[in-house]
Parts: sequence; C-alpha cells; structure tokens
Amino acid sequence: MILGAAGMVGRKLTQQLASAGHLGGKELTALSLVDAIDPQKPANFSQNVCVAVADLSLPEAAAKWVATRPDVIFHLAAVVSGEAEADFGKGYRVNLDGTRQFFEAIRQEGTKAPYQPRLVFTSSIAVFGAPFPDVIGDEFFTTPLTSYGTQKAMAELLLADYSRRGFFDGIGIRLPTICIRPGKPNQAASSFFSGILREPLSGQEGLSATVREQIAALRKIAGEKAVALIRREPNPIVAGMVSGWPQKFAADRALALGFRAESSFDEIIRIYIEDELGGRIPVLS
Amino acid sequence: MILGAAGMVGRKLTQQLASAGHLGGKELTALSLVDAIDPQKPANFSQNVCVAVADLSLPEAAAKWVATRPDVIFHLAAVVSGEAEADFGKGYRVNLDGTRQFFEAIRQEGTKAPYQPRLVFTSSIAVFGAPFPDVIGDEFFTTPLTSYGTQKAMAELLLADYSRRGFFDGIGIRLPTICIRPGKPNQAASSFFSGILREPLSGQEGLSATVREQIAALRKIAGEKAVALIRREPNPIVAGMVSGWPQKFAADRALALGFRAESSFDEIIRIYIEDELGGRIPVLS
Repeated sequence: MILGAAGMVGRKLTQQLASAGHLGGKELTALSLVDAIDPQKPANFSQNVCVAVADLSLPEAAAKWVATRPDVIFHLAAVVSGEAEADFGKGYRVNLDGTRQFFEAIRQEGTKAPYQPRLVFTSSIAVFGAPFPDVIGDEFFTTPLTSYGTQKAMAELLLADYSRRGFFDGIGIRLPTICIRPGKPNQAASSFFSGILREPLSGQEGLSATVREQIAALRKIAGEKAVALIRREPNPIVAGMVSGWPQKFAADRALALGFRAESSFDEIIRIYIEDELGGRIPVLS
Repeated sequence: MILGAAGMVGRKLTQQLASAGHLGGKELTALSLVDAIDPQKPANFSQNVCVAVADLSLPEAAAKWVATRPDVIFHLAAVVSGEAEADFGKGYRVNLDGTRQFFEAIRQEGTKAPYQPRLVFTSSIAVFGAPFPDVIGDEFFTTPLTSYGTQKAMAELLLADYSRRGFFDGIGIRLPTICIRPGKPNQAASSFFSGILREPLSGQEGLSATVREQIAALRKIAGEKAVALIRREPNPIVAGMVSGWPQKFAADRALALGFRAESSFDEIIRIYIEDELGGRIPVLS
C-alpha cells in the first residue's frame, strides 16, 4: 500500500515496484494506491491494483484502509513545506494528525488479530535546523525551523515509539529536496531547486537563485541556450527558510543499509532527461 | 497560572511564588491553580487565588482557562513515566493531546486580541535514550526509549514551533527525577529513587536498588537504623526502563540561564528533611 501514491515520489515508487514485480525478496501480488487526488495505475503490471481517493486525515479513512492488512505500507502523504508554513492548521492536520491516525489505526487493527506490517515513512532533512556543523551526522539533534520540519520530527518520534512497542516495523527516511521534480512548480520551499533546471530544459524560463553548481551542470548538458532562460528573482520568504537548511550529510546509517546516492549534478540531470523527457531535451530541439 | 498545581512540583512552585510575592521582577497579583485533582491554596498569600479542578485534555477546558489571559503559565501537568508506559492511550491523551490543546488554545486566544504569554513547560531527561556518551551535552539528540519520553520530546518540538511563530514565549526545562519526592510512591519509574530515602527517614521500609551513593548519604545523615530499612526487591520492568536512562549532563545552557544544582546527595536529603519533615527525622525519634 502506498499512501500519497499520486505524488512525485509515490508515482516513481509505484512504477518501480510494478516493474520489479517483487519487494523484499517476495513476489508483489497486489498494490493499493491511495491519495487525496486520483492515483494512476502503473503500466505493465498484471497483478491486482486498487486505486482510491481518500482523505487520510479522517480517522475512519485510515481504519478502512488498514483493515485490508497490507504487508508493507509506504507512507509518503504530506503537505509540503511551503504550504505547511503558510497554513498552520492544515500542516498539523495532515502531517501530524493524519500520520498519527494512520499509525493508531494499525495499532487498533493489531488488537483484533496479530498484525505487524512493515511501514516505510518519508521524513525530511527539514527536521534539522541551523546553525549546522560542516558535515551533519546521523546523530545530529533535531531542531526544526519550520512547522513542516516540526511535524516530520514529531512523526519520527511516533514512528520510533510505535515500532518499539511492536505495533509495526517502522523505518523513517529523511529525504532531501527531490531534484529534478517533474511537472509544475509546487509549494515546497525547495521547489526552485528543481525549477531552475526543469524549466530551462523544456525551453521555459526558470526562477533563479545562487545555485552555481546546478547552473554549471545545466550548461554542460543543455548548453547556454538553457542557462539563458534562468532569471534572478529573490523571494525573501523562501530565502529565509532555505538559509536554515542543512547541506552536507555523513549519511553513514543510510549507506550501511544499502541506500545509494548520485555522485554529481550531471547524473541527476541525465536521469531526469531519461525518466521524464524521454531522453530528449526540448530546448535543444 | 499553574497547570498541574496539585502535583509535587506544582505545590513547591506555588508555595515558592506565594512566599516571594513576585516573578520576573513584577509583583504577583493573582494565582490560578489548575489540576485534575484539587490544588491547595498557598499559605500566607494575600492576593487573589483561583483554585480549579479541570481535565485539560478536553479542548473546551483549555480554552476556558486561557481566556483569563494569565501573563505567565507554568505547564507541569502530565501522566508520569510508568503510567504512560502501562496505559498507552492515556499517556498520549494527556501528555501530547492535552499539551497541544492548551498550546492551541493560546494561539486561538491570540487571534481575538494580541496575547503572548510566557510559557514554562516541564519536559524530562526521558527525551534521551541509550546508548549515552559519558557526559550528555545540550545538543545530544532525542531518541526516547519510553512513550513518556516520546510524548515529552514531541511537546518540546511543539513548544519550539509555537514560540518561533510568536504564539507564546516558551521555555522548556528537562527535569531529572525529582528527589526526594514527598508523599506516597507514585507510578513514575523513578519513584524508587525517592522511596529508598524517603521511607527509611520516616521509619518505614523502602524499596531497594543499587544506588550506592544514595545509601551512603542516608547512612551519614540518618544512620544505620534508617539504612537497615532498605530491602532489595528487583523489578524487571523498572530495571528495563532505568537502564535506558541518561546519567551525567553538561547542562551548560541551563547554568548560563541561572539554574543552580545541588552539589551532593547530603544536601538533597537535608533539604527534604527541612522542607517536608519539619527538620525532624522520624526514624531517629
């Protein structure tokens, strides 16, 4: 089951799981895709797929979906950082209450008959707050400087307590900004980080920031014609949030668990062109 | 206003404030004492005192008390560690929901007319979890190993976010176990830590643990007759919780803010005899 299956990470994960056909050494026999907006069925997947629109911030919705007893649950559903900062109530309702109600629905389901699913929760590096050391290790303390980061840090604590109690087998992953996020700009404060590369590749103007390394990579792969489409337009609200963001991590635990990272921005841009633009760069066509 | 005014810290704080007659350089003109059980009016205080029994885990209760717009709020109300571990639902309801609803009531009150009280929140060293370094600094990460510690860590995150947003001016204090807690043993897992000293001083048997330093101090002040009343009776549940507790702290921030600590167990026992036993040791009488 994937909560937040219609989002960018949800869509990529759905397609990846459907292509692989297995997960954790077991055959994938069914997929439940849940989101507040309509999730899409994956291509080339012959097994059962259940697609549903649900508001998971409502307790009864969570109980209904947990009652289907999925073996593995990916909880990706969230209000993004900029929106959670702009709408205080909505951020807490979705990111904290929605998550807690889902965790609680799993606990309640387990009181009927033994049930302990694997639960993968996407947290965020927004759980960290400035000032930062040069390199941030796995044991750096969590002092978020946004409501979004606060909600993610609170959900991490719940995840650990519910796992310790044995209600599920949880793991949290602190995602950095997703780059290059396909589609339209969203309300994540980090949205510019994708836009500065995505829009010029499509022949459109992109919003600018002092992201020298990104621009150099863009120039290398798509040329000056793409770079010329970047325009500098400071946004003080985003600048304030971004100045409190962590940068460099020593992600020892994630690497030990088998996670792999791209080694350059060139690679990130090439993956985006391959995955989202069909290997073709519109601005060069 | 003191929430949890009938508890041990609440009673000591109430009496201390009433005796001082001022707080933060200002005269104390009124005291509101709120608790789930009946708080006691302080002796020798001529100003207004309002005493009330209220279940602060109910949203309407919080709104009602916040509407009186106290300048300073001490939020001490909590379900203790052992009870929060034994009753999962109650711990989250009181320690997380109760705290959040109170914070939210302050935010809502501020939408009617400007209101930004000083809010003092008692957290706990239970926000930390083993393994520990030799000395725990202010920037050690929060990985609680109990539901109580999880709830306190979540409340700290809320406290910081509500303060950052300007809804109140919050400060959190991570209390260690309160020693010597007067009265009867409670459900705090740390209760034995007071009981081993309190009961022998009163001529009663106390529960035992390997707390060599405490016993030596007791022997010094109250003699062998008191020490002989300590009985060894291991409790595996408490032992499990206590093995995950932090011990030594470098509380630089607290010291810089003016907090002072006792320097020996002798001093702690003497304060208890003075404050709670009227300077007289029953076991020696």
